[in-house]
Amino acid sequence: MKSISTQQISDCGMHDSTLILQPQQMATIAFSEVLPPELAKASSLVFASNKNLFQQANENKVKGFILTEAVWIEVKSLITPEMSIWTVASIPQAMSLVLPLFDLKKDFIKAGIHPAAFVHPTAKVSPSASIGPYSVVEAHAEVGDETYLSGHVFVGAYCIIGARCHLGPHVSIGSDGFGFFTDKKNNHHKIPQIGRVVIEDDCELGAFTAVDRATLTETRLKKGCKTDNYCHFAHNVVIGEHGLMAASFRVAGSTQIGKNLIAGGAVDVNGHIKITDNVALLARAGVTSSITESGIYGGFPLETQRESTKTLMSLPQIKKIRKQVRQILKHLQLAEEE
Amino acid sequence: MKSISTQQISDCGMHDSTLILQPQQMATIAFSEVLPPELAKASSLVFASNKNLFQQANENKVKGFILTEAVWIEVKSLITPEMSIWTVASIPQAMSLVLPLFDLKKDFIKAGIHPAAFVHPTAKVSPSASIGPYSVVEAHAEVGDETYLSGHVFVGAYCIIGARCHLGPHVSIGSDGFGFFTDKKNNHHKIPQIGRVVIEDDCELGAFTAVDRATLTETRLKKGCKTDNYCHFAHNVVIGEHGLMAASFRVAGSTQIGKNLIAGGAVDVNGHIKITDNVALLARAGVTSSITESGIYGGFPLETQRESTKTLMSLPQIKKIRKQVRQILKHLQLAEEE
Amino acid sequence: MKSISTQQISDCGMHDSTLILQPQQMATIAFSEVLPPELAKASSLVFASNKNLFQQANENKVKGFILTEAVWIEVKSLITPEMSIWTVASIPQAMSLVLPLFDLKKDFIKAGIHPAAFVHPTAKVSPSASIGPYSVVEAHAEVGDETYLSGHVFVGAYCIIGARCHLGPHVSIGSDGFGFFTDKKNNHHKIPQIGRVVIEDDCELGAFTAVDRATLTETRLKKGCKTDNYCHFAHNVVIGEHGLMAASFRVAGSTQIGKNLIAGGAVDVNGHIKITDNVALLARAGVTSSITESGIYGGFPLETQRESTKTLMSLPQIKKIRKQVRQILKHLQLAEEE
Repeated sequence: MKSISTQQISDCGMHDSTLILQPQQMATIAFSEVLPPELAKASSLVFASNKNLFQQANENKVKGFILTEAVWIEVKSLITPEMSIWTVASIPQAMSLVLPLFDLKKDFIKAGIHPAAFVHPTAKVSPSASIGPYSVVEAHAEVGDETYLSGHVFVGAYCIIGARCHLGPHVSIGSDGFGFFTDKKNNHHKIPQIGRVVIEDDCELGAFTAVDRATLTETRLKKGCKTDNYCHFAHNVVIGEHGLMAASFRVAGSTQIGKNLIAGGAVDVNGHIKITDNVALLARAGVTSSITESGIYGGFPLETQRESTKTLMSLPQIKKIRKQVRQILKHLQLAEEE
Repeated sequence: MKSISTQQISDCGMHDSTLILQPQQMATIAFSEVLPPELAKASSLVFASNKNLFQQANENKVKGFILTEAVWIEVKSLITPEMSIWTVASIPQAMSLVLPLFDLKKDFIKAGIHPAAFVHPTAKVSPSASIGPYSVVEAHAEVGDETYLSGHVFVGAYCIIGARCHLGPHVSIGSDGFGFFTDKKNNHHKIPQIGRVVIEDDCELGAFTAVDRATLTETRLKKGCKTDNYCHFAHNVVIGEHGLMAASFRVAGSTQIGKNLIAGGAVDVNGHIKITDNVALLARAGVTSSITESGIYGGFPLETQRESTKTLMSLPQIKKIRKQVRQILKHLQLAEEE
Repeated sequence: MKSISTQQISDCGMHDSTLILQPQQMATIAFSEVLPPELAKASSLVFASNKNLFQQANENKVKGFILTEAVWIEVKSLITPEMSIWTVASIPQAMSLVLPLFDLKKDFIKAGIHPAAFVHPTAKVSPSASIGPYSVVEAHAEVGDETYLSGHVFVGAYCIIGARCHLGPHVSIGSDGFGFFTDKKNNHHKIPQIGRVVIEDDCELGAFTAVDRATLTETRLKKGCKTDNYCHFAHNVVIGEHGLMAASFRVAGSTQIGKNLIAGGAVDVNGHIKITDNVALLARAGVTSSITESGIYGGFPLETQRESTKTLMSLPQIKKIRKQVRQILKHLQLAEEE
């Protein structure tokens, strides 16, 4: 259990020199946890984005609130002197700043190499990096400053992980790309994958994410990319800065994607294509050819968001349409064309 | 190789105080293995759900049979005195009771922590639990009685695994949920995931299953859930008792699912929705909004089983329908509307 | 950095007693790396399948080229005496022969068991096999000659891996198949999976691939199968010789597939069916029933390549078709049938 003071919360309120947490009323409180309104107690800090949530927490005797400005105006009359109140423009932003104070597990993450981790003598691991149990950093691989490798992370030889990255459990960096030459007897001969992987600074990779080694050069996730679990980046792929990819995003070999990609779950992207900057892909989208215009796309085959949503909603109508076409053909005494 | 007597088989025939294996004829036999009829030999025990299977095994000199009652009636005349025969209402039920006797690998699973496993000093592991090689149990995590962790299982800090659970290789419990605040410069700031995961008693999780840590509270799989490989439970998800989820079941954040869920392979469930009790989802179903009525559903978009099957079967007809509509428009001398 | 001579490259030019690399002009060069034309330098070897690529490399002062015969004829006039040139029928074939010379990471792969690997005393590991860090070979399992297990590979008890196999990081061999008996109270009782897995010679399994243990007998990948990442073979499945399966290929229990399967990404195959020899499945195909004729198939539901491509391309037309049918009904003054 933590004991976090009102002052400590106020102190973490800055981002890019802007005061994000506006202290509205300060009381002396020791917070022991953050909880949603319905589960909160007197010792809890609560984030509330509407009046109902505030009231629910208030009934639970909560004394610390982070509120949007709109809620603050609505609930002012209910505030008592023993409460601490901060207002914010964005609840998620406030969470990103305040929750680290209450993160119990963080106390067990220390810089250094866990005694049950394997780092090859030729690897270069920053002294401020943290390498978790049973993680592997192979020959000539590099891990940057303040980067965290959870348990069972694999970083293959010659691969490079930048600074301030977060690699979840069971991540695989630098497994071989899938490349074979098939002879006339149908034997598949391995094309060795002699390139590497580069994960730039500030990336986060979810559990079971795989970034395959390039055939000759490199597979690269640029600065600030974040992947959910089970994302797969095949050999030679490049993902631009600030990509945000939900679970099971899969991109086949040699595809290049621009910056600010947003992908919903279970999106598949073909190999050897290009996707321009500022593209969003809806869940389950299947991208088979290059995307040259920024925008939101979905469906399989891919259409604009508007069209793909209409297509999806129309699919169940196919049964009715089929019946109606038969009705019309019958009415017109036309034979059914095969 | 095992040596299992007729008596030992009879002895394991009870379930919930009901005699499941009805001994019909007992002979002195030492069984060394269980095999399907076509591969069986004189030393084998065979399960047969129809007469043909019995006859195939009989040709292979098999002497031990577990039969459905219907088969027993049909084959009675072929039974010889050196045979042992049990009848059962359900072959799978009989298998669940009898196969443990023949499980060679079980002999190597012992209570205790494998010397090549890492358990944090603050973790609480039951003395009757078995922690496999290179498994990790982090700070303040708990593992219940008789629970089995295979190799390379990751149990993150503060997560709880109940009693009699079975976690396959490479399972990840308590990796961070996928949550970020994106600022105006498109930088994604991590929202720390400070909650935990609770896996209740009697759950089985297949290889590469991921249960992500909650943002504030907990992600929970209730009693008796079974998952195949690659199932993904995002942050804050709750799955009710006795869920049965085939491979690559994926559920996005904060969704709540009732009890007795059955899901086919590669089902995707959206975040922030509710699914009521007793729902079955066909393979590849895509659930985008809440399900309030029990039943069987499939397709993407989701429909009832009946409708989704019809939609699926109609999809290839779209080519023919398209042609027919053109034919009609031409016949009526109508211009094609765009 | 490597230093590879012209002679060393010529020396690796044989496959099945056929000279694959035809030396056209030999100069004394020490190559330090293989690079694509646009990144190459004077020390690079370049593979070029068209004239433009040759010219790009030539501008970068490249002196070593492996060219298709067609390119060689086109660029002959541009060749200078200090160049080494080989011609080949197939660039991928040449890559499979030449790239091992330049594979830096290979120098760190040695026969033997990594000190941070766990091999059960009863397991049989060939002295020429290489078992990577934190890999597990459980009781009575076998690993054949020259087989390579990367990091975090799990080989369960009694499972067999043949010779010259390559198992990527986090591969799971012999996790339990997904089999339960469900009683009237909706409790799922495990059907123990007492069979094994056999991976025959010359197989390559990508990261996070799972081959589940059979219920009674064996799950088998036959000689020369290659899988990309996240491929899932459920209990009792058999895959014929030389299968080539792209990422996230998933096949449910007891299905038998013939030889020379080719599968695109994210293909799902139902359980308890048979697929004949020489079948290719397009990306995202969903196979629900047996395939008895060789050929190329795609779509969900499955059709021949030709039909499935037409269906896919027609799907977005459904919106237009729907409108036209309404137009016709109105024109004919017919009521819409429900």
